[in-house]
Amino acid sequence: MHEPLSVKTLEEARKEIAENWDFEIETEEKSLEDSKGLILAKDVENQIDLPPFDRAAYDGFAVRAEDTFGAEENDPVELKLKGEVHAGEDPEIEVKKETCVEIATGAVIPEGADSVVMVEDVDEVDRTVKVRRAVSPEENISQRGSEIEKGEKIADKGQKITPQVRGALYAAGVKEITVIRKPQVAVISSGEEVVSPEQKLERGELYDINGPAVCDAVELAGGKSNYYGIAGDSVQEVKSKVSEAVSKNDIVITSGGSSAGSKDLIPKALNQLGDRGVVLHGLAQKPGKPTLMAMVEGKPIFGLPGYPVSALMVFDQLVSPYIREMAGFGRSKRKIVDAKLSRKLLSARGRRQLAPVQIIEGEGELLAEPLKKGSGAITSLVESDGYVEVPVKKEILEKGGEVDVNLFGDGSFG
Amino acid sequence: MHEPLSVKTLEEARKEIAENWDFEIETEEKSLEDSKGLILAKDVENQIDLPPFDRAAYDGFAVRAEDTFGAEENDPVELKLKGEVHAGEDPEIEVKKETCVEIATGAVIPEGADSVVMVEDVDEVDRTVKVRRAVSPEENISQRGSEIEKGEKIADKGQKITPQVRGALYAAGVKEITVIRKPQVAVISSGEEVVSPEQKLERGELYDINGPAVCDAVELAGGKSNYYGIAGDSVQEVKSKVSEAVSKNDIVITSGGSSAGSKDLIPKALNQLGDRGVVLHGLAQKPGKPTLMAMVEGKPIFGLPGYPVSALMVFDQLVSPYIREMAGFGRSKRKIVDAKLSRKLLSARGRRQLAPVQIIEGEGELLAEPLKKGSGAITSLVESDGYVEVPVKKEILEKGGEVDVNLFGDGSFG
Repeated sequence: MHEPLSVKTLEEARKEIAENWDFEIETEEKSLEDSKGLILAKDVENQIDLPPFDRAAYDGFAVRAEDTFGAEENDPVELKLKGEVHAGEDPEIEVKKETCVEIATGAVIPEGADSVVMVEDVDEVDRTVKVRRAVSPEENISQRGSEIEKGEKIADKGQKITPQVRGALYAAGVKEITVIRKPQVAVISSGEEVVSPEQKLERGELYDINGPAVCDAVELAGGKSNYYGIAGDSVQEVKSKVSEAVSKNDIVITSGGSSAGSKDLIPKALNQLGDRGVVLHGLAQKPGKPTLMAMVEGKPIFGLPGYPVSALMVFDQLVSPYIREMAGFGRSKRKIVDAKLSRKLLSARGRRQLAPVQIIEGEGELLAEPLKKGSGAITSLVESDGYVEVPVKKEILEKGGEVDVNLFGDGSFG
Repeated sequence: MHEPLSVKTLEEARKEIAENWDFEIETEEKSLEDSKGLILAKDVENQIDLPPFDRAAYDGFAVRAEDTFGAEENDPVELKLKGEVHAGEDPEIEVKKETCVEIATGAVIPEGADSVVMVEDVDEVDRTVKVRRAVSPEENISQRGSEIEKGEKIADKGQKITPQVRGALYAAGVKEITVIRKPQVAVISSGEEVVSPEQKLERGELYDINGPAVCDAVELAGGKSNYYGIAGDSVQEVKSKVSEAVSKNDIVITSGGSSAGSKDLIPKALNQLGDRGVVLHGLAQKPGKPTLMAMVEGKPIFGLPGYPVSALMVFDQLVSPYIREMAGFGRSKRKIVDAKLSRKLLSARGRRQLAPVQIIEGEGELLAEPLKKGSGAITSLVESDGYVEVPVKKEILEKGGEVDVNLFGDGSFG
């Protein structure tokens, strides 16, 4: 069933993926408490009138406006003070003809009153309030629902739950919202010599690097990462891990095990698992040759190169846009900064190349320093902030030339 | 003890704070697992040689180099094949004179061998390997420790634990690291009418907005937020909540309760608590008048305005830089974008003003749309992505003018 597949460009690969994979953006109900940073899948309706009651806009005295008619600076109207209302209190007192009630900003307007005289417009002497300025009905009152009524839209589908939005939704009495469900992404490492970091390293073994690094990158792209450990040395073990991962995840990512040296372990296993099996093997770029994509039970399996920096670059290019889109973040929001090359960058003719770089903050500008060691070096991993794409037809990017740096992770550096 | 304090500019306020508050950047030990996004407080030493053993750089045959001397394309040297070594295996086999062992990329070089002949340079017939190209000692071998030796520095103090760094540290056998401890930030809301979102809203009450919004903003600035709920209506209650918060946190943030209408509840309480008490009351900007800062038991209490958008703007300006610095993120990394004003922005003469704006993505540019409603409106909160600073001497910023927008939270918008 497994036929050798021709190497494809990134654009061809995306087309191939689009033809083979129909993903849906899923939604789920979440409490507001657990929704930080998620994306609203539906418009949100305000659950209460805001303000929820007629309230005093200023400190002053709740009155019947008609009682103040004719009041002037030199000819005040006298009202009997009958009590006071604090913020937070449900007043039982009623404002009857020619009386008033002291009221604090934000407090409920008591029954009978229809307006508030501001504190600076009265003189108070022995339970008598002299009003020096007439008010009209509704003056100095924030009417119930005047800002936004119950049932009106308070937040839009597609909005991110930022601190601001979350605060507003709490105020609006919203408890549960419909959000875009984070895509579940399984991460499987491979390699006969690779062991999980919790294990003691025996002679001949190496710790897994790609597992934790790819998991973190998945989370920063908006996905939920689920680490399935290391699929060791047999086709059967890879099949079993991938089968389990496929049944519980939207996307499965493997790394390593897809180049010639590893005896095509992963493609072999994937071809045995699915009726479609491997649909893409090899990207026409450097690094990218050991990249693959397979379809198993309607789910995509992305196989990344084994070299860690290569794995992260290919993840960022090929996989991350889908995770971002499924998470509702939008494909376009990748983090790119302009920088100047700190030295000449050489590339192979006839192939697109991704070159890992470190960002160095220069005087008023950013420098992109191409890493000296290869993508396989672990020290490269510590230094790399992102990568530069060198187009097919370029062999040299000159020192000082402007480049776009695709930043890894959350786009921080330095 | 409480004397009315003069209103200060932001710069004066920062100076005042510097004179009163000596904060330290604290460190703690963390497992690598729990360190995502944190900042290294110490250089990290590599715990194992990398590679941890002499390994084959290519698929081929482990040999003694001297046995291959003189081998040529047309005059191959014959070696007896004695077995094979897989990646991940600790080989017991020894390579003796005129023998060889098949070896996979990444596998341990067996005893006796000092080099690897690549698979394409041999012909294998019946347990006899014909070597067509001589190798020199160490050829095609990655020497133990050749990339980085045990004890060498693999990551620098001040580096962020990105996916790349975390992957590399796992590979380097690092389990525990010393990181900058997240500053612990207590968040207290105030207001007699404010209740926690879990409660049922009684007539006269409003849900707390600032609590959750400020907590989220603290987390995005790199702090750990600890919500202490709402300090209601008495000086005693404020004192008790602040005392508890001060004993367990590095910074305490309150909101509301510091303007005239609320009877100076918070400043009164803070002055009773500390020997220094309130050291700053009022910023010379709009909004900012109800801002305060007090010192209690060597810890700063920042009092934010009660209006939610105002609270977030003042938090971003005054408090967030300290949290970022204590978290090791650096003061400078605030998120600012260039945008053009979508309409004229009017400001009060003689006072710096912060104007909340919504970011709208225009054709190839960003537009900053000043919000129409005030900072008190909850709907303003949902729309605001950040704010523009209007300098003291400006009364009008013209439509189409370039402005710097200070983005809230994680700097995402739209």
